[in-house]
Amino acid sequence: MSCDARFKEAAAALGYSFDDDLKIGGNYVPLIRDGKNIYVSGQIPRVGSEVVVTGAAGSQIDLSRAQFAAKICVMRALALLKQSLGSLERVKAVPSISVFVQSAQHFTQQSEVADGASELLFKILGPAGAHTRTSVGAFQLPKNATVELSLLATVE
Amino acid sequence: MSCDARFKEAAAALGYSFDDDLKIGGNYVPLIRDGKNIYVSGQIPRVGSEVVVTGAAGSQIDLSRAQFAAKICVMRALALLKQSLGSLERVKAVPSISVFVQSAQHFTQQSEVADGASELLFKILGPAGAHTRTSVGAFQLPKNATVELSLLATVE
Amino acid sequence: MSCDARFKEAAAALGYSFDDDLKIGGNYVPLIRDGKNIYVSGQIPRVGSEVVVTGAAGSQIDLSRAQFAAKICVMRALALLKQSLGSLERVKAVPSISVFVQSAQHFTQQSEVADGASELLFKILGPAGAHTRTSVGAFQLPKNATVELSLLATVE
Repeated sequence: MSCDARFKEAAAALGYSFDDDLKIGGNYVPLIRDGKNIYVSGQIPRVGSEVVVTGAAGSQIDLSRAQFAAKICVMRALALLKQSLGSLERVKAVPSISVFVQSAQHFTQQSEVADGASELLFKILGPAGAHTRTSVGAFQLPKNATVELSLLATVE
Repeated sequence: MSCDARFKEAAAALGYSFDDDLKIGGNYVPLIRDGKNIYVSGQIPRVGSEVVVTGAAGSQIDLSRAQFAAKICVMRALALLKQSLGSLERVKAVPSISVFVQSAQHFTQQSEVADGASELLFKILGPAGAHTRTSVGAFQLPKNATVELSLLATVE
Repeated sequence: MSCDARFKEAAAALGYSFDDDLKIGGNYVPLIRDGKNIYVSGQIPRVGSEVVVTGAAGSQIDLSRAQFAAKICVMRALALLKQSLGSLERVKAVPSISVFVQSAQHFTQQSEVADGASELLFKILGPAGAHTRTSVGAFQLPKNATVELSLLATVE
């Protein structure tokens, strides 16, 4: 099965399509290609014009819902790459991702939240989805999002 | 009008010059060039030896003042690039910027704060100022700064 | 004295060896090499399976202990580079590091905490240890760690 087919399958499993234009929230661009590097802007769990998971993990949002938010974020990043490259098959590597998790004071499972995103990267991209990662507990995030994820991908 | 002239104009509009040596706050360097990539350290809204905007956005600091802070940060980053390269005309792209906004608990306009910086990048650098962006609500920042901004630029 | 000898010396001064396998906390990889760039995942002050410095700087943890945490983090990053490259002599530059410090609300010495890591980079790598830096006050960090540090290194 191709990366693109696996992407479609994962989108269906989450209950969303990521085929539409992806709204972004400010005066910048969603991704920039520089040689073989592709930088993707911080993604929040927005579907259409709605941020579907908001609030702090550990109080308003439980671990599994926060992982779901992380999955939406990474699917958006992959959708942007797919739109830009034509196919996710062209992604050669994902050198690094950053995952910010809006956290209640005593919530320390930022890594576990980020695992939601990491799992999808491996599932969809295969070995090309291997990545380094930094997970941080944020006090707030744009639009009260529970998770924000940015990444760097490379192509051949 | 050249990038450098637009830089001067933007500095005047903010009420500051950025011609002096830029003080940094620790045991590191303000920027590093690696091939065509130039990494710029996190900049806070410091002018001379004073951090001119401090405190949390959404409580002590309102949106417009936080945007002003973001503008000072990005002007510092551009001033460093200008000092290093001789001219901002040599900047080819700004693949990514990170904007950390010291935030009150319910302040969710980190993107709007970052727009202050984004707007200046476009205004001064033109198409070369297009960038990806990640905006995060931080609990605290060095020296109680309201905003901290780092960026990656590229040259030919 | 070689970088590797200085690494050993610094490890001894901290009271730890970093020779063992370095446990990581999730579904990702500790480092990725992409051409001459090496991305290292966010490191927390874990020794063996224990996170040795936890809690917020400025309340539970004082500045000097937080600096110690930053040192453990950077030693882990260097240990990963050493394992991967055979020798730290092969590190040519450290273009950027990010330092997240779990902070009490009024703790504003994130830069001073990060100086702990910066100092070791210079001490061990010499001129190749010069780096740009972004230090941020985080609300929480994975496993309640006091510090998390990620970095980008380059090789010839």
